[in-house]
Order: sequence, then C-alpha cells, then structure tokens
Amino acid sequence: MGIIENISCSNDIKKLRPEELKPLCDELRAFLIENVSKTGGHLASNLGAVELTVALHRVYDTAKDRLIFDVGHQCYVHKIITGRRERFSTLRQYGGISGFPKPYESGDDAFIAGHASNSVSVALGMAKARTLLKQDYDVVAFIGDGALTGGLSYEGLVSAAASGEPLVILLNDNNMSIDPNVGGTASLLQKLRVKPGYRRFKREYRELLNNVPPLYSFNHKAKEWLKTRLLPDNMFSAMGYEYLGPVDGHDVQELERVLRTARDMRKPVIVHAVTKKGKGCTYAEEHPERYHGVGPFDPETGEVYSGGESFSEVFGKTLCALADKDERIAAVTAAMASGTGLDRFALRFPKRFSDVGIAEGHAAAMVSGMAKQGLIPVFAVYSSFLQRSYDMLIHDVSLQKLHVVFGVDRAGLVGSDGETHHGIYDVNFLRSVPGMTVLCPASFGELRAMLEEAIYKVDGPVAIRYPRGGEGEYREISTEDEQLVREGADITVVCYGAMINDVLDAVRRMEAEGISAEVVKLNKITYAKFPRVFASLQKTGRLLMPEEVCAIGCVGRHLLAQASEAGLHLKGARFLNLGDNIVPHGTRALLLRDFGVDADAMLRAAQELCRL
Amino acid sequence: MGIIENISCSNDIKKLRPEELKPLCDELRAFLIENVSKTGGHLASNLGAVELTVALHRVYDTAKDRLIFDVGHQCYVHKIITGRRERFSTLRQYGGISGFPKPYESGDDAFIAGHASNSVSVALGMAKARTLLKQDYDVVAFIGDGALTGGLSYEGLVSAAASGEPLVILLNDNNMSIDPNVGGTASLLQKLRVKPGYRRFKREYRELLNNVPPLYSFNHKAKEWLKTRLLPDNMFSAMGYEYLGPVDGHDVQELERVLRTARDMRKPVIVHAVTKKGKGCTYAEEHPERYHGVGPFDPETGEVYSGGESFSEVFGKTLCALADKDERIAAVTAAMASGTGLDRFALRFPKRFSDVGIAEGHAAAMVSGMAKQGLIPVFAVYSSFLQRSYDMLIHDVSLQKLHVVFGVDRAGLVGSDGETHHGIYDVNFLRSVPGMTVLCPASFGELRAMLEEAIYKVDGPVAIRYPRGGEGEYREISTEDEQLVREGADITVVCYGAMINDVLDAVRRMEAEGISAEVVKLNKITYAKFPRVFASLQKTGRLLMPEEVCAIGCVGRHLLAQASEAGLHLKGARFLNLGDNIVPHGTRALLLRDFGVDADAMLRAAQELCRL
Repeated sequence: MGIIENISCSNDIKKLRPEELKPLCDELRAFLIENVSKTGGHLASNLGAVELTVALHRVYDTAKDRLIFDVGHQCYVHKIITGRRERFSTLRQYGGISGFPKPYESGDDAFIAGHASNSVSVALGMAKARTLLKQDYDVVAFIGDGALTGGLSYEGLVSAAASGEPLVILLNDNNMSIDPNVGGTASLLQKLRVKPGYRRFKREYRELLNNVPPLYSFNHKAKEWLKTRLLPDNMFSAMGYEYLGPVDGHDVQELERVLRTARDMRKPVIVHAVTKKGKGCTYAEEHPERYHGVGPFDPETGEVYSGGESFSEVFGKTLCALADKDERIAAVTAAMASGTGLDRFALRFPKRFSDVGIAEGHAAAMVSGMAKQGLIPVFAVYSSFLQRSYDMLIHDVSLQKLHVVFGVDRAGLVGSDGETHHGIYDVNFLRSVPGMTVLCPASFGELRAMLEEAIYKVDGPVAIRYPRGGEGEYREISTEDEQLVREGADITVVCYGAMINDVLDAVRRMEAEGISAEVVKLNKITYAKFPRVFASLQKTGRLLMPEEVCAIGCVGRHLLAQASEAGLHLKGARFLNLGDNIVPHGTRALLLRDFGVDADAMLRAAQELCRL
Repeated sequence: MGIIENISCSNDIKKLRPEELKPLCDELRAFLIENVSKTGGHLASNLGAVELTVALHRVYDTAKDRLIFDVGHQCYVHKIITGRRERFSTLRQYGGISGFPKPYESGDDAFIAGHASNSVSVALGMAKARTLLKQDYDVVAFIGDGALTGGLSYEGLVSAAASGEPLVILLNDNNMSIDPNVGGTASLLQKLRVKPGYRRFKREYRELLNNVPPLYSFNHKAKEWLKTRLLPDNMFSAMGYEYLGPVDGHDVQELERVLRTARDMRKPVIVHAVTKKGKGCTYAEEHPERYHGVGPFDPETGEVYSGGESFSEVFGKTLCALADKDERIAAVTAAMASGTGLDRFALRFPKRFSDVGIAEGHAAAMVSGMAKQGLIPVFAVYSSFLQRSYDMLIHDVSLQKLHVVFGVDRAGLVGSDGETHHGIYDVNFLRSVPGMTVLCPASFGELRAMLEEAIYKVDGPVAIRYPRGGEGEYREISTEDEQLVREGADITVVCYGAMINDVLDAVRRMEAEGISAEVVKLNKITYAKFPRVFASLQKTGRLLMPEEVCAIGCVGRHLLAQASEAGLHLKGARFLNLGDNIVPHGTRALLLRDFGVDADAMLRAAQELCRL
C-alpha cells in the first residue's frame, strides 16, 4: 500500500501521474478484498467499478460536482478515496460507515441510495436546480445495467433527454465479459468516436453482444435480455442522448478521456462502459452472484463462512413442495431469485417461474392478471422493495379481491443495509389494502404451515411476512389467529412474528422480578377482533406491545383503541416501536436497544406499568 | 338509430356486413355525444376510439378473449356494444354503470382499470395463465400513447416481449392528426405490410411524425416527445415485438385486417393505430383537452356548464403569486397540469414548470433532487395517483428530510370516477413517512394560508391535502394545529379538512336534539400531541370522529389510544370511516350516507354516545 494512503479527495486523484493509476487500482482491489472479507458487503460490484470510480474522480470533483449513485452498493471505492479509508473497517457495522452513499457521512456523497433506478430522476432534479439557480457544478448519474430494468429509470431517462439539461449518465454494464479481440477492436474504434466533433456514428457491435456467456442464473435473465435487445444503437440515441460507447470499463485513461468529452458536450449524454463484475479476484469473477452481497469470507480461497438455514430458504423449499402437487402455483421475483429462496423453484419449474428484473410494480400487476385467470401466483419480495408496488396492491390486486400470495421477506429490521432497506412500513401499508390478510410466522414450521394456509385457506390477497436470517428460540407451530403462548396474571404482552423471541427473553426476566406476564402472539395481524387479547386484558388490565415498525404501523394502538371503544379501560398500556425515526444500520439487537424495543426496554416498561 | 339497437355482444358486431360498419360508428358517436352531454364523462377519447373498439369486437370475442383496457376511460363504446346501451344514461351516476371497466358489471370487462400503464403487465399475466393452464383464448391490451409515458408500461413491454407469449398490444395513438396525403400513402403501404409473410419492413414515416401540430398544452409535451423520438421504427422492434403500423385508426376494415393478422402471429405484436381525439365532433376535435374528462355540456354547441371555483384553481393561483416573489419555487405535475390548476403556472413560469408525463414515481424522485440543491419544488398530484410514489416518498424525500411540498389534490371521495380514484389512503400512507407534515385546509382561505406555511414555515417534506371541487359552508381561515370551532359540553367532535362542513350540519341537528357538541378541527394531522382535543375530551368524556379514509388511516383511533395511554378514560368513542370497504362511484353525499359517515350517522352516533 503506497499511493492509496495519499488519497483523500477527488483532487488527490487528479494529481496522480497517469502511470500511477493502474497501481492505485490494484491497491484499491487488494484493500477491498481484505476489508470486505472481514465485514461482509458488496464485493463483486465494487471490484468491477474500481476504474470507473477512479476515472470519475479524475474528471469531476465530488465535493462540488454531484455524483448520484444508483442502488449505491458500488460506492465503496468512492468512499475509500474521499476520506473514509481509515474508517473502512467499520463498514456496515453499528456506528461505522454505511455500505451506501450518505450525505450525512460526507459532502462527497451527493444523495442517498439503496433502492434501484432513481439516479437519473435525482440527477435531473439537481441539474434543473443548478440551471435555474445559476449554480456552477456538473451532475453525473452512475447506474448499473440491472437498474435499467426498472421503469423508474425509463421515466427518468425520457424526462432527462427531453429536458436537454447538461448531465452525464455513466452506465456500468457489468454482465458481459469483453472478448479480448472484439474488445480490442471496439477500443480502437472508440478512440475515433469520442473525439469532439465526431459525435454521430454507427455502432456495429452486435457480434460483441452475441458473445455473452451462457446465462449463469435466472436472476440476470431480464437484464441480459434488455441489454442485448435495447441498448446497442437503439434506445439511448432514439431518446435523444449523445451516446458514447461501449468503452472498456477497466481502462482508466480511456474512461477519463470519454467522460471528459461527455462532460464538455453540455447536454444529456450516456457513457456506456462495459465492466467485469468481480474483476481482479478469481473467485469473485467466477461466481459474481455469490459475491454480490456476501457475509465475511476467507480472502484467500473465497470460502464464505456459512450461516444457518434462513426463512428465505424455507420459503423456497416449501413453495417447491407445494408446487409439485399443484400446477396452478407460479412464482415471481423482481431480480431476487436467490435472495428470496426462489432459485430452487426457478430450476425445478422454469415455465412457472418469472424473474421480471427490478420491476416490483410490474410484478404486482402481472400477478393480478395471473390470479384473475386461475393461477395461484406467489410474489416473493423484500418488504422494503414492495413499497414500489403499493399502488398496484390496491388498484390491481385488492379492488378485485384477487388471490395473490405475497412472500414478504426481510420484514422488520434488516441490520447492516440500514435505513434504505429496513422493512418497517409494510405492516402499515399492507393493512391499509382492502381485504388483505397479513400472516406473521415466527418459526420455520409456522412459515411452512402459513404458506400452505395462505395458498389454500385464505380468500383474496394475502401476505406472509418473515424476517431476514434464521429462527430464534421460538420453534413452535401455531396457525391460530391469536396464540396464547404463556399464561400470566399481571400484564399482557402482545407481539407477532420474530419479536416473540425477544418477548420470551423479557418475560423470563419479568418473572425473576416478580411480574407474571401473559403472552399472546398474533399470527394474523389483520384479524378484525382479537378476543383472546381482550380476554387477557380483562384479566391483567395492562398491555405491553413491542413492534419492529414505524409509529403509524403500530398494531398496539389499534388494539388499545378497540378495547377502549368496547368499554374496556386498562390500568396502563405501553407501545414500544421505532417511532417516526430514521433507523440506521447496525445489528438488529443494537438497533432495538437504541430505539427502546429490546427485552431491557420491555422489562422497564412492564415494571412501570405494574406500578399503575 | 338503427344498427346500434341490435348489438349486444361481440358476435352481433361480427354479423354485420362491412358496409354497415361506418353507419354503426356514426350511430355510436351520436349516442356518445347525446349521453355524455347529460352525464359528463370522458368524451374526446371515446369519440377517438370508436373504430378501434368496433374492429376489436370484429376480431375478438370479449366474452371469452381478454381485452385489457389501460386507464379505461376509453371503454364507453365497448360498454355500449356489450349489453350496457340501455343503462348508459346512468353512466358514472350512483348505482349506475361505471365510467371504467368493471368485471362485476359484465364478463366482457376482463379487468379493472383506472390508473395508467398497467395493461401490458396484466395482459402478460393473463397470457401466462392461459398458456400454463392450457386455456383457449386471446389476450389484447388496449393502451393509449399517454400511458406509455409511465415506467410501468415499459416494465410490462420489456417483460412481455421477453416472454414470447402470444398477445397483441393495440396502441391508440391519439395525439397526432394524420395528414391526408401522408396518411394515404401510409395506408397504401400498410396493405402490403400486414400481409402474412411480409412482417419485416422498414418504416420511413418520420415525415408523418414531423407534421405534428403545435403542442396545444404542456400536458402533452412528454408524450409527444416520447412518440416522436421513440416509437417510429425503434423501441418496439428493438424490444422484439412484431410491429404493425401505423394504421389509420378510423378505418374499421383496415384495422380489422391488421388486428386479425396480429392475432394470428401467435407472438407478442404491437399494432400502432393513429386516431384523432374527439373525432367526428367539431368542438371536441378542436379542444380535446377540454372534452377529455368533462361535466355536462350542451351537445349542440359544446358549452360546458360551469362549476364554481375549485380548490385546484385556488392552489394554482396561490402558487403563481408565491412564485412571483420567489425564484426558488418550481412546480411539477405528472400529466395533470390542468386538473391540478398548474396550467396557469406553466404559462407564467415555463422554465420552472415540469410536466413529466404519467410518471409519479419519477416526479417524486426528481423533486427530491431539486430540493437537495436548493429549489423549493411543489409537486401537485391527485391523492390516488400519489400511491405510485409511496416508495420515493420514504426513500428519496424523507430519509434526507428534504423540503418538498406535495399538493395532494382529490383527497377524500372523488365521486363519479369511483373506486380506482378515491383519495382515501393518503392519510395513512403520508403519516407513515418519517418527518412528513400533513396539512388539511377546509376553505380556500386556508389553502392559501397553508400553502404559504408549507413553503416557508415547515421543515422537511410536507403535504397539503384538499378535496375535489369547491368549498362548502365553512369559510374561515385558521392555521393553528388544532382549532376550536365551537364550544360544547356533552361530546367532542373532531374532524379535519372538508368534513367540517358535514360536522357543522350535524352539530346543529345535535343541538336541536339537546346535545351540546364541541368541535375541534385538526389543521395538521401529523401533530404529535393534541392538547386541545385532550382538554375537550376531559370536559366531555366522549369522542366522535368522522373521517373520509380507509379504516387503518383513521386518525381517531390514534387519538383515542394516546388519550388512553395518558390515562384519560372516556365514557365512549365512535369512529366513522370507510372501513375496509371498496367504495364505488356516486356523489360524495350518497357514498358517505351508505358508509355511515354523513351528518345523519354523526347524529345517531352522538345520541348513542350520550346515553353512555
């Protein structure tokens, strides 16, 4: 390590001699592998974006110019070279630096990122502000090919091209390897193409695109398809962009030259760079999907330290077993086949499986059409990304009472991905969808039972929400609407889903303090009346309800209001939840502690309530 | 009227002799004008779609084949010829037929419609079901050029092309007039093009597209742009569609021939038909925007019977006045410049105005970029369509506490547009957005005052929600968080927004019955504590809260839970709202009556509460 230590801003990068750039990139790669192997994180995409990021900093000054990342998981190199190298070992850790761009962390992070496909829209808004307010800076959106599958990016691209605002969109196209020969030819041509004055040209590189290696996973089908059909020569120039590309995304000097040309055109420009995901790290190049988002691993061999079985895996296996016996079952994912455990389904039932790319809105509308005609569609999606489908949940699914099953994965706090990814809104927005049933398994056994229940015993739309990771102490299986987990006399603790584990811990400690807690677990949080909870409240007179949700999502207040409407007046009630706060990254346990939703907080609240 | 009376299904249309088709279309136009002039509704788009609809029924049988309308306001002719002619005078009236497709109304309506850009996704879902379940029917999506500006349509188009499923997408391109000469040439070429076997051809009709008349309104800028840049020869064929077009959308026999060819190709096909909005009705052809969605009018002259001033107009005027004095203010609409009252702003401040097309997600992301860099963006949008921005409200706007102002128009029940358009979810989803302030003006004066307050006195994201139409009896101006409207001793009636008018009516009747009601109006429903409400509840011990929202959106239950948590036990509480129901079309008054949220229901509830 030598050059890297002298870099802490864009201007430091600009001072380097051209021959220092390659060694810098090598150092950055070694630094990435060493650190991410310890912290976990997004390895392959960052390895692929090293030269792009260095070239961006050669041309722009991110302290002043606005660099908008799309999704943002490819921002590590940017962070390393803008003053956060020394803190990089704290990546994604509680209190450490985030794995995504955060303006609160550095002025070099122009905007938050996490969800896909918004970067062009945001960049356009900034470019408009710059022009209207007569400010002086450049705007660049840095978007991957995956994010182009989202309709939001299309809306942004159309709007930005129509605006004529000077801005550059750097497309990091990381799913095709460049064949050495064709790449060489392309590179040769490229030098001609990017000369100012020679802006219109025909690109004849379909041969290149035809050399795409066999698709290694369903996960990439949609974006591969999109690229080979739409990108070359077609969509961008038709939209009105100056299109520069394809550029070898691992040739820093070439990239620098093209970006400079693009910047100086003073109009909407697309720079199309082709990179290799995992570049420079054998195991990551060979299995980019495995090292996309990865936990800690052995930096020598790439061996990933394995976690146990997850709710996602149980979901995928159970769905396969059910689909074996019922040809009406079809599965849908929005670019998360592996994350949601549907990869297994994709291999076993390829015709009944659809990966639509990062297009949650389309997925929700499509499954409604499937359900209307007699299929039983199951859309597995992360809670946070399902926010993109909110309108379709009401308009397409609910108004016709269609029987669609939503597997809502990553419900609750997700840990190290932080504020953009926590699944803490779905309880609220799912319950507002007319006729929606929301089931909350807390163990693998309950997930299995409730998935079958959702498919065969529930009418209309139904969501099953389950957390990231594996199960805890609670391993029972109940599919009652309300489940009396433990009897007690002094206080009623109500919860749902994985929170039962924290509650069981808390009630043991309450017992040690002389408080006898009754525990009722809700398995269906859309159930209109809760007779078992009410019976318990009549006995104890006290309600404590901890929830991993935003304040308005709090089911507890609805319970209390219902009790109060029914004339049941309690001695006291306490609701522990995440309030109106923005919850950062960190382990679930530490975050629950900070926001007062952990077993300690439950114990304190119970003690206070029992004094009433 | 002669032919029309013998038509009540697709098969009746098929039995007509070719020479009867033109007279039928004339009859349909006369029927449309006569009826819509009395009921109000979507005139211009239906006049433009007469031949397309007749041709669809010549080729398909909508009792069996699945015809998916996009947006659906162009479904009138379809309804007239599928058994709903005699009920057509009840269009959009309470208890009458809907202005949008409804499967509950007829088996010929394959799917609900109302929001834009979902038709291809829905059609693809149905095509997949048909193939997997080995069913036998055809699937057609019927989409207008406006809906193509939505990213959801792009997601659907990409996905449908990739699937290879046999389905036809009929594009009703109604914003360009066909020049008689060029049109003739195109028509000549067309006959060659649609012969089976001659499927690949070059289309040289940019000249045609260059003949677009001057844009008559900002409203159409985005889609015009999109069409002239993307459609010809480019996007669809690049996606992998068989593209057939352009076809003269007013030549039934030509359309029939092309549609039949498309259907028989057994793969994804786009049929691009060019129509004239308002066709066959002079005033509607000349001012298609005025007769898009229109109230009752004089069928001879086209004179629209005018309503009074609306909240939308007051919003637009006020924003102009504020923007006169502040160059940082910028306005954004998603294809609703006139509906939201921003047409005035567009003319006065063209550089500071953006119409992004039907792209609410993009609009919300773009305004966040604008706000981040120092503009004060105001996004005016209908409540129901803002559902499309839910994720961006959280991810792009809220997490960075950006100061964006949302003008949430059509909040509450919207009347004759029905279930797809009621703004009854925003109270719930807006309050779940961290840091969002929600203001609820009830008079024009309050809207003016609160818009200024939102722009200058509120930090972070802020929404102002106001109803469709004009103001009622209440004309005061208050910007207190809680406003004591009327003192009383027996019961506290809490409300917000336009509901105050119904409450004032109800409390007068309560008084006549000997019940003294205190009325507190909430002007800010995201206010964390409500001391004035609590003080009133301490006095009266009874809470009644009527709201025009879905059950989970009910602010009243949160108030009651807060009171209960604070140890304030009431004698009784009643919440009147729309529950978990799907609310159909009809006047607001009749709907509130049916769902028990009107003054009658308030009086009854107050009487019951006062017996407690």
